[in-house]
Amino acid sequence: MVSNPERRAALVDAGVEVLAREGARGLTFRAVDTEAGVPVGTASNYFTGREELLRQMDARLHQRLAPDPDVVAALMTRPKDRALVGAFMRDLMDRATRDRTGYLALLEMRLEATRRPELRASYTESLRGDLAEGMQFHREAGLPGGDGTVVVLYLAMLGLILEHLTMPDVLSGALPGADVPDDLVELIVSTVVPQERPEP
Amino acid sequence: MVSNPERRAALVDAGVEVLAREGARGLTFRAVDTEAGVPVGTASNYFTGREELLRQMDARLHQRLAPDPDVVAALMTRPKDRALVGAFMRDLMDRATRDRTGYLALLEMRLEATRRPELRASYTESLRGDLAEGMQFHREAGLPGGDGTVVVLYLAMLGLILEHLTMPDVLSGALPGADVPDDLVELIVSTVVPQERPEP
Repeated sequence: MVSNPERRAALVDAGVEVLAREGARGLTFRAVDTEAGVPVGTASNYFTGREELLRQMDARLHQRLAPDPDVVAALMTRPKDRALVGAFMRDLMDRATRDRTGYLALLEMRLEATRRPELRASYTESLRGDLAEGMQFHREAGLPGGDGTVVVLYLAMLGLILEHLTMPDVLSGALPGADVPDDLVELIVSTVVPQERPEP
Repeated sequence: MVSNPERRAALVDAGVEVLAREGARGLTFRAVDTEAGVPVGTASNYFTGREELLRQMDARLHQRLAPDPDVVAALMTRPKDRALVGAFMRDLMDRATRDRTGYLALLEMRLEATRRPELRASYTESLRGDLAEGMQFHREAGLPGGDGTVVVLYLAMLGLILEHLTMPDVLSGALPGADVPDDLVELIVSTVVPQERPEP
């Protein structure tokens, strides 16, 4: 295997573009080479196979879609209340919207994982880690609500991101005067998260 | 166009199988003919093109995944409380789990719609109709919560179905002792839906 880290990263990002645009069956080494503008045969020198490319795409998307540490640090200076949960959820929605291609590639990867047990195992692990981290963060920050709150928030935001990125017009107009997606993020948070932490 | 309604229905169902199993790029007339066990060239006599096949698949899945009127009628004899909302959501989850192939095909269709504006327009219309119907049903039945409750419930159930059908192991073990998906349906309902209707 060749190891030029920059070229490897460019090939992984090209894979993300191809997967989002063409779907899983369109993700071939040849299509990745073309997308990256490199000679045909290059990708096959960097990845042992398609599974390996998909695993590296998963890891890369994890980075691309991760929160900006500076944004998190700035938010964490605020009171640990429901409004702060709202700010974190808006940031999550913003990241998914800004890197729509990356998020659509993750959705394609979910469907591809229904066909490939190996990919499902590694992708399950990374999603589980995200959810466990979210619960731990919420607890340690002293934000209102418990682990159950975080799970329901996670599922409702997953539904909102799926709907907004694939079928944006379903939600617009559903609730008169509600802007999509911002007001729906607020609605989810105010419905799911208790106003205050219960007394210990 | 040939019009043998039974054969047409069999071809549409074969299309659903192929789409769920192979992804959007695998959905060709030839693959549909093979799946349906009919001579190559048959599908092209029934559909003007791939868009037309996808539209008929959408309509068909709408039927396949719709609630059973007898189940709805039986549920509607119960008190119009939060527990009844829970029973409806369990029924929704059951339908998606029983016809996993059909639901996975719908998820593929969402992603395909990001590439095909025509498909997006017709699919948006059918999803919008479902959501509007859900809100109207909730209002007319006098179930607890308003339109906002229904929207958050819709999004959280969408997230749960997506996660459970594609990455079932992410949620198992997330909350100790919680069975997936049943206890998560209960958690969503008890978090999102108010216990009682507010006084008018």
